[in-house]
Amino acid sequence: MDAPSTVESLREAWPRLQDPERLEAFQALSPADALVLFPTLSAYAQGMLALACPPTERRLWLRLLPPDDLADVLQEVEPEEHVELLQALDAPTRAEVRALLAYGEDEAGGLMSPRYVRVRPELRVPEAMAYLRRQAHERVETVYYGYVLDQGQHLLGVVTVADLFAAPVERTVREVMRTEVVSVPEDMDQEHVARVIAESDLLAVPVVDAEGRMKGIVTVDDIVDVVQSEATEDIQKMGGTAALDRPYLQTSLLGMLRSRAGWLAVLFLSEMLTASAMAHYQGEIARAVVLTIFIPLIISSGGNAGSQASTLLIRAMALGEVRLRDWWRVVRREMATGLYLGVILACIGLLRILVWEAAFHSYGEHAGLVALTVAGSLVGVVAWGTLAGSMLPFLLRRLGFDPASASAPFVATLVDVFGLVIYFSVAEIVLRGTLL
Amino acid sequence: MDAPSTVESLREAWPRLQDPERLEAFQALSPADALVLFPTLSAYAQGMLALACPPTERRLWLRLLPPDDLADVLQEVEPEEHVELLQALDAPTRAEVRALLAYGEDEAGGLMSPRYVRVRPELRVPEAMAYLRRQAHERVETVYYGYVLDQGQHLLGVVTVADLFAAPVERTVREVMRTEVVSVPEDMDQEHVARVIAESDLLAVPVVDAEGRMKGIVTVDDIVDVVQSEATEDIQKMGGTAALDRPYLQTSLLGMLRSRAGWLAVLFLSEMLTASAMAHYQGEIARAVVLTIFIPLIISSGGNAGSQASTLLIRAMALGEVRLRDWWRVVRREMATGLYLGVILACIGLLRILVWEAAFHSYGEHAGLVALTVAGSLVGVVAWGTLAGSMLPFLLRRLGFDPASASAPFVATLVDVFGLVIYFSVAEIVLRGTLL
Repeated sequence: MDAPSTVESLREAWPRLQDPERLEAFQALSPADALVLFPTLSAYAQGMLALACPPTERRLWLRLLPPDDLADVLQEVEPEEHVELLQALDAPTRAEVRALLAYGEDEAGGLMSPRYVRVRPELRVPEAMAYLRRQAHERVETVYYGYVLDQGQHLLGVVTVADLFAAPVERTVREVMRTEVVSVPEDMDQEHVARVIAESDLLAVPVVDAEGRMKGIVTVDDIVDVVQSEATEDIQKMGGTAALDRPYLQTSLLGMLRSRAGWLAVLFLSEMLTASAMAHYQGEIARAVVLTIFIPLIISSGGNAGSQASTLLIRAMALGEVRLRDWWRVVRREMATGLYLGVILACIGLLRILVWEAAFHSYGEHAGLVALTVAGSLVGVVAWGTLAGSMLPFLLRRLGFDPASASAPFVATLVDVFGLVIYFSVAEIVLRGTLL
Repeated sequence: MDAPSTVESLREAWPRLQDPERLEAFQALSPADALVLFPTLSAYAQGMLALACPPTERRLWLRLLPPDDLADVLQEVEPEEHVELLQALDAPTRAEVRALLAYGEDEAGGLMSPRYVRVRPELRVPEAMAYLRRQAHERVETVYYGYVLDQGQHLLGVVTVADLFAAPVERTVREVMRTEVVSVPEDMDQEHVARVIAESDLLAVPVVDAEGRMKGIVTVDDIVDVVQSEATEDIQKMGGTAALDRPYLQTSLLGMLRSRAGWLAVLFLSEMLTASAMAHYQGEIARAVVLTIFIPLIISSGGNAGSQASTLLIRAMALGEVRLRDWWRVVRREMATGLYLGVILACIGLLRILVWEAAFHSYGEHAGLVALTVAGSLVGVVAWGTLAGSMLPFLLRRLGFDPASASAPFVATLVDVFGLVIYFSVAEIVLRGTLL
């Protein structure tokens, strides 16, 4: 039933192999097994394997791929290697691939396949079925939908195999086609295309240009990859790194440093503002060293509350659940949430300090006032962190950046400085005349 | 071409409406528009709308849904409302839905549809095509694959519409069917099923029980939803909240607090260890107040490095790129990465302190030694943060928890205490005899 165990076990191990090991393992496969495996690999691996083998064999492998996958492969290899790969294609395919490369990788045009079934509206049902039958021999992406086009390539409607099966034989395609066709413009962002397909429950959507001329189709199996890789990109940005181009174990040490050191250094430089804030309060700290005890606790609570809020909103924006214009509704929700969360932590903090003081006398004669300072600061810091964390994704999107850059580390860094200012301001009010 | 603008605009606004607004908007639609919209809504919304309308209408709406979607709807409503919804179904559908409810929501059995096309192996090609044609009138999930079963319901192979189109008419199904069928067991986790479908580029995979008997099919459009919602769940956990059951704007204030307060309080309680650590170092702080200036900078750098590492590894594990047994390879990579990152930050920190000292004389007579303390601590804290952040997802998975719980806030909290200990230990070595 299943594919031979060698292919299966190689497929399992594949993500964790380095390029030379992959090449060796691939070349050790029987030709039949290799034919099964090759089309299921990532575009990066397909490019690597195709470039590593002799031209005659390369032709064989690349012929297995439809033009949209070939365009992905070309986008994964160095530009100087494009010629080598393009030469391995037959002339019509080469032209199709070149046309696809003109689109951005992340838009509908870059995802689509130009190989779909065109049907003329005046065909009768049996003729259309015979035509679809002939197309099944050709290399088209899907024979399940026939797209009905006029002379000018404008999309009039769509017929499914099931529609034709079910239709009376004397009807024409125009009479049985569905005219309420969901289509997407060629420059639509791939995340948006994914949402359209997911909501429509279609196997494929047609891509049309500004004049309504059909250019290709995006199929649902491409969308699974898009959804997966967009989520990966967002998750990596939200963790405070640049998105990796390759799977974790395939990324070189240098590539790893490149994606991480930049953000880490930026965060470090911003976090230096805390050093300035702390320097500003050196007088207060020298007079009341006991205040330092709670500095990490207070600033990290603000950071934690902020990263909760930013994470929820980044994801809600990515899924289209929240738009820019909803910002005021979000402000009101998050203000309330932040205040409640702050009060909860303040109660826990108050209890902890009073219990410790009763048990160990840790915090000196003004322990009650210190506890009040900590509790008051927690309410302010958590509420501020929550609000700041929820607004940062809106601000980033408004400025044209990716909201996912509002990573937990970024939010925590932003909130830390304000956390210190809030803490010492509350301390100055509560402890004036006693400790300060 | 497009669906009427009222449905389109409602579909756009839908995620941001509250339940009563949704009900009102839905009831205001023309019946034709409502028929288009209903099947594309979330299971939660379908359940809400179905329960809100009179039984005769309810029957109409629920008949639009295949049994797997109906099972999802039942899983979204309160158990006491199951009877009401089940009564609205015809007897065979009710039986199918009941059978599906026996499976876990997150496994292949819970995703599958029992409505697929069965074909007998001894049929000849024209008979099989005529049979598929009749099925196109029935409510089956997909007519594109015919599954070839023996008397005991064991899966022998699969034929596609395209195969039948292309096959000589005198052949039997057994002769033209594909026998290398990718199938999944009924208890396979839905994330794993999603990976199988994504890799196989199939429109549907058959689900079989332990004896190889076919139970149903999982179609690729269900998988888009699975991939999207699994990513949402991981992202929310990684941001330090419990996963939300509903879209952001549909979650009540109480639900919001429930999903956030728990983790925030746990993190707060753990972060109290920093208060104990700080209390332990009160003597050193009183003697060298200048050390406090860099506390937020140092501990947050460790937290940032740690959340980068944990994020990359959580995602790599979710995508199957890294397994538990790869932990030692990851340790070696992350040790090297962490040391390099630590050295980079140490250089920036050293430079910053020396420049500030030259310009403003901020850090007293021992500024050079303070700079050395900060630089040394940064190497240690960033390397430790990176290692701890990368190992926490492994530890959690090993213990049977979800690695995604290794959220940025969780890692930062873990790293903070050790960051303080490292900082003050380095200070004791470097500053002994001068400041300390």
